[in-house]
Amino acid sequence: MNILSYTFEEYIELVRSFHGYPAPGVIIGGFMVELAYQHLPKEGLFDAICETEKCLPDAIQLLTPCTIGNGWLRIMNIGCFALTLYDKHSGKGIRVFLDPLKLDAWPEIKSWFYQQKPRGEQDNQLLMKEIKQAGANILSARQVKVDSSLLNKHRAGSALCPLLKEAQPPADNKTCLGCQGKISYIEETSIS
Amino acid sequence: MNILSYTFEEYIELVRSFHGYPAPGVIIGGFMVELAYQHLPKEGLFDAICETEKCLPDAIQLLTPCTIGNGWLRIMNIGCFALTLYDKHSGKGIRVFLDPLKLDAWPEIKSWFYQQKPRGEQDNQLLMKEIKQAGANILSARQVKVDSSLLNKHRAGSALCPLLKEAQPPADNKTCLGCQGKISYIEETSIS
Repeated sequence: MNILSYTFEEYIELVRSFHGYPAPGVIIGGFMVELAYQHLPKEGLFDAICETEKCLPDAIQLLTPCTIGNGWLRIMNIGCFALTLYDKHSGKGIRVFLDPLKLDAWPEIKSWFYQQKPRGEQDNQLLMKEIKQAGANILSARQVKVDSSLLNKHRAGSALCPLLKEAQPPADNKTCLGCQGKISYIEETSIS
Repeated sequence: MNILSYTFEEYIELVRSFHGYPAPGVIIGGFMVELAYQHLPKEGLFDAICETEKCLPDAIQLLTPCTIGNGWLRIMNIGCFALTLYDKHSGKGIRVFLDPLKLDAWPEIKSWFYQQKPRGEQDNQLLMKEIKQAGANILSARQVKVDSSLLNKHRAGSALCPLLKEAQPPADNKTCLGCQGKISYIEETSIS
């Protein structure tokens, strides 16, 4: 089974170059994006929601126009291994998730998913073989409609934090969140 | 001025293919990553923090091994147009930010950054010309040490949400955050 225009092996190389290594979650994520597209209209502008920050966002970024930086991919980290591609205007789309109820036939995937073995004891070759053989058989999909409250995204402009002398969203008024202690750096030396 | 191994024009094409269009923030972000690397040791494993979710994360993902899915890039959205690359063990690194105090010589960049004109009235050609000419001259850098509390990242394993029958982090105990209403889908039909 191909993953969009890639063979399984080509996709593994793509994942390696972007993600650093052929992580099982990104590989399975490829089949998830493929399955979502199979059920979406051929034409349309689709945004993405990813329900985990682990691995899966990179499959979305590699295979769809949606990235974390362009704002078309939103990560709502509720910890489900699930993604949704949906029409950005209507909210109608497809949610695909790795279905634990379908994992019994694939013991190495199940063991990986539930972290039943230390990573070092994982049989990576068998795991990849099972992932390739399983393809979409470990996934489930739903037609969904994303709540309208999620469709309109406001990206704030910039103002100057009087303390840091850097830009920050104007809504955060006086000083920026950095100066309010939301992030901890110990600054040492200005270098340019 | 090159951006790592890319010419300015090559980098623009790279950004177009990943981000969808040559967004000024991702282009400037390229110079920011380049500047950070100039001040980092040649050897080392560097994680990234990005202080905005707008555009800049994609420059990091394109030019460093750090992605949102592999966990080496962390977005702490405090709204500063700033990134930090730091040694993942010691926390020592370089923070680079677009410095508003250096923007007066570059009116089109300044106007873009503060959103002083509607996007349609922006002179994109002039903006790109200024970005290319300015290079690192609109940036400032600091040697920093990232607080140790940020260095150790725990990625939770998976358990089964009894309601949704999907996996979720075990720490979230009974039902998953989805079932607790943290994300709103209206489910319509199971399709596979």
